[in-house]
Amino acid sequence: MLAYQLIERKRDGGRIAPGEWRDLITSYLRDGVTDAQMSALLMAIFFRGLDRDETVALTEAMLRSGASLDLSHLKVPRLDKHSTGGVGDKVSLVLAPLMASLGVAVPMMSGRGLGHTGGTLDKLESIRGFRTRLTLAETRAQVERIGCALIGQSDEIAPADRRLYALRDSTATVESIPLIAASIMSKKLAEGLTGLVLDIKRGSGAFLPTVERGLELAQVMVSLGHQHGVPVVALLTAMDRPLGRACGNALELEEAILALHGEGPPDLMRVTYALGAEMMVLGGVAPTRDAARRAMEVAISSGRAAERFRQVIEAQGGDPAVVEDPSRLPQGAECELFVAPRDGFVATVDPRRVGVGVIELGGGRSRPGDPIDHSVGFVIPVRPGDLVRKGEPMASIMARDAAGVEAGRRALRDAIVIADEAEYPLPLISHRVTLEGVMPYEGNEQVLEMAAQR
Amino acid sequence: MLAYQLIERKRDGGRIAPGEWRDLITSYLRDGVTDAQMSALLMAIFFRGLDRDETVALTEAMLRSGASLDLSHLKVPRLDKHSTGGVGDKVSLVLAPLMASLGVAVPMMSGRGLGHTGGTLDKLESIRGFRTRLTLAETRAQVERIGCALIGQSDEIAPADRRLYALRDSTATVESIPLIAASIMSKKLAEGLTGLVLDIKRGSGAFLPTVERGLELAQVMVSLGHQHGVPVVALLTAMDRPLGRACGNALELEEAILALHGEGPPDLMRVTYALGAEMMVLGGVAPTRDAARRAMEVAISSGRAAERFRQVIEAQGGDPAVVEDPSRLPQGAECELFVAPRDGFVATVDPRRVGVGVIELGGGRSRPGDPIDHSVGFVIPVRPGDLVRKGEPMASIMARDAAGVEAGRRALRDAIVIADEAEYPLPLISHRVTLEGVMPYEGNEQVLEMAAQR
Repeated sequence: MLAYQLIERKRDGGRIAPGEWRDLITSYLRDGVTDAQMSALLMAIFFRGLDRDETVALTEAMLRSGASLDLSHLKVPRLDKHSTGGVGDKVSLVLAPLMASLGVAVPMMSGRGLGHTGGTLDKLESIRGFRTRLTLAETRAQVERIGCALIGQSDEIAPADRRLYALRDSTATVESIPLIAASIMSKKLAEGLTGLVLDIKRGSGAFLPTVERGLELAQVMVSLGHQHGVPVVALLTAMDRPLGRACGNALELEEAILALHGEGPPDLMRVTYALGAEMMVLGGVAPTRDAARRAMEVAISSGRAAERFRQVIEAQGGDPAVVEDPSRLPQGAECELFVAPRDGFVATVDPRRVGVGVIELGGGRSRPGDPIDHSVGFVIPVRPGDLVRKGEPMASIMARDAAGVEAGRRALRDAIVIADEAEYPLPLISHRVTLEGVMPYEGNEQVLEMAAQR
Repeated sequence: MLAYQLIERKRDGGRIAPGEWRDLITSYLRDGVTDAQMSALLMAIFFRGLDRDETVALTEAMLRSGASLDLSHLKVPRLDKHSTGGVGDKVSLVLAPLMASLGVAVPMMSGRGLGHTGGTLDKLESIRGFRTRLTLAETRAQVERIGCALIGQSDEIAPADRRLYALRDSTATVESIPLIAASIMSKKLAEGLTGLVLDIKRGSGAFLPTVERGLELAQVMVSLGHQHGVPVVALLTAMDRPLGRACGNALELEEAILALHGEGPPDLMRVTYALGAEMMVLGGVAPTRDAARRAMEVAISSGRAAERFRQVIEAQGGDPAVVEDPSRLPQGAECELFVAPRDGFVATVDPRRVGVGVIELGGGRSRPGDPIDHSVGFVIPVRPGDLVRKGEPMASIMARDAAGVEAGRRALRDAIVIADEAEYPLPLISHRVTLEGVMPYEGNEQVLEMAAQR
């Protein structure tokens, strides 16, 4: 009867008290509340929302449904970065070893590809032997030793969130800001962090495309972190085009390795540095974001960041030689150039269509548990605003076979639109959200970028 | 993926096409759509509604999920009455044999107690041996022979509705007009009717308390019937107090038997006659409602209606002697009078509290499948507006034991409110809804009742 009453109350716009959230989640994990009841409640929450206290209580209840990583004995700050998901977003692969090489411990739990977006775990599994399933004890030991672990959500962490997430994913109740916030935060709090940086994507390829919804999520997350004593800073970044050039698991891993060697594409580097600077300042290992930026550049140019990635790969059972020789990663059997069909300006590179294209090539899942081909994907050097000439290469397609090449061609034909006039894409980093409020992003990167656009 | 897309579309205010409803329901019955997905869709429908075409298509899909009763070879009209459910509502028990005795075939499928309301099947099962589970073939043969069968929803009829109904009942998605309409209509259409009369309850004890929502349901049902070639007439009746005096299974059956002998309480008789008159006119066995009324009075005074009930009970394996000797029904071990605590006017007899009181006495279910005690309940002769004196009996409590008596006393103390001034209850029958529209109910009963109140 409890579940029924809570569904009815939420349906009619009422509030659920902290103790009720606890009972509900406990009962759900013991099968006292059915999936059907829970999904009805989730849909009611989609329509009615949760207030701040309810979001805090739900987060707490999910956090307490499992174990936590206790890293409080470490002397170093412990930070993580979370992205709301995009296409070509390989920032985690660069940022985690980079931060670890600079004295910030990063116990990073990531996910798999979801919808049209890729997943950090899938990308890491391009590396032969790489284990993403570590126990909490193994994770703890590795973070102590080399400052970084790149793992999947362990069964021990927030089991309620794992069940709820699968349910939301099958019942069209993902796109609810309080549910997104509680889900992310219940897992991140279990990592025993001293701070968290969020990369909130906006634009056509983001789960929450509008800037208003992105800012709302950022504010809820910042406040939720504050309630739990974990400072959170969020940046809003563009996902109206892919981030970087590579889209596809091994291709993105390769691009991340290039970035750790100082050869990453400018947009990827800007976002990585911006998020890294927030982490370093939050963690107290740099006095300002400018100082942090300089330290990161040195960590990369000195080879320390790449070396840290090598150590992480080795520690997690992968082939560390990929860091010096990315050609050891799986390679698509077929590779074909995709050329501009006409003269003009690149108007859009639609990230959603590109992401779906990767799935069609076999590089992502239509259903959870499907096997994936890590080798396939796209490399798309053109960006919105670029001038192209007919017949000029705009991208390459890496596929298993001729049918894959054809599917890739179709995807790129849909995704890359050429127009007569240049249109301006979204600013790469538009807003910075802290407990103090929402501010336009004023980093050097942004200023340079806006200058370049004029 | 189909289910996901339909949930998402409905969530966002879109329409589901007829073919999609069919596929959805088919897939649901084959477990291709999970209960969790279906309940998320039901909650989205709760918020977004269904338009007329969607309601028709859902009804059709549920109807076609099972078998139908083919009675088209019968020469007589086939009609049923459906009530949206109330407390003390034993109209079906009187009306079905009464109509059958007047040449209207009544293949009546009823339900069990739900929430605070009683169920016709539970009341019938007060009769020792009475079988409410007949096959469609048995039902058909019985309707052919004696013009009436009083049965539960067979497994063969609209299995999709049965599963959906159980789901709605556990996920707080019952109170949606299109879902209510489609659920009722899918079952009623499977009865092979030539017409249907609805008793739509309004007031505090109704599932849809406001007159606006009651009228909306009436109009949707009338239109839905029309789309399927079944004329529907709906009356809105009062459920701000129990109907009749008896509340509880055997007690209500006894009151229905009294009514068939011409000794029913006036409000029960008025509603029964009003609904019966609609059935007779719809079925073409009476030219006007006044003529129908007179024919019903004769059927009762002549004993033909009571005799028909005896035949039905006998045909369904029950003890037919209860019709002449209701003391053969189960009797509560304890019986206690409940007296007025002060002088004043009866302001309310809250049907919801009375209904919950019956459950607390053991006469209803908190969970589906719970056993029930048919003997317990209340007889409440007082009605809102009555003047009572302190110490004067207002009701009696029939219970299993002293604890039951105490629970019954508590329920009646809450339910029966005495005030200094008389308040007017809702008119017993307020509106009549047909394809022509909504009209104030102009029956003699209503006029008399209003005169009596002045």
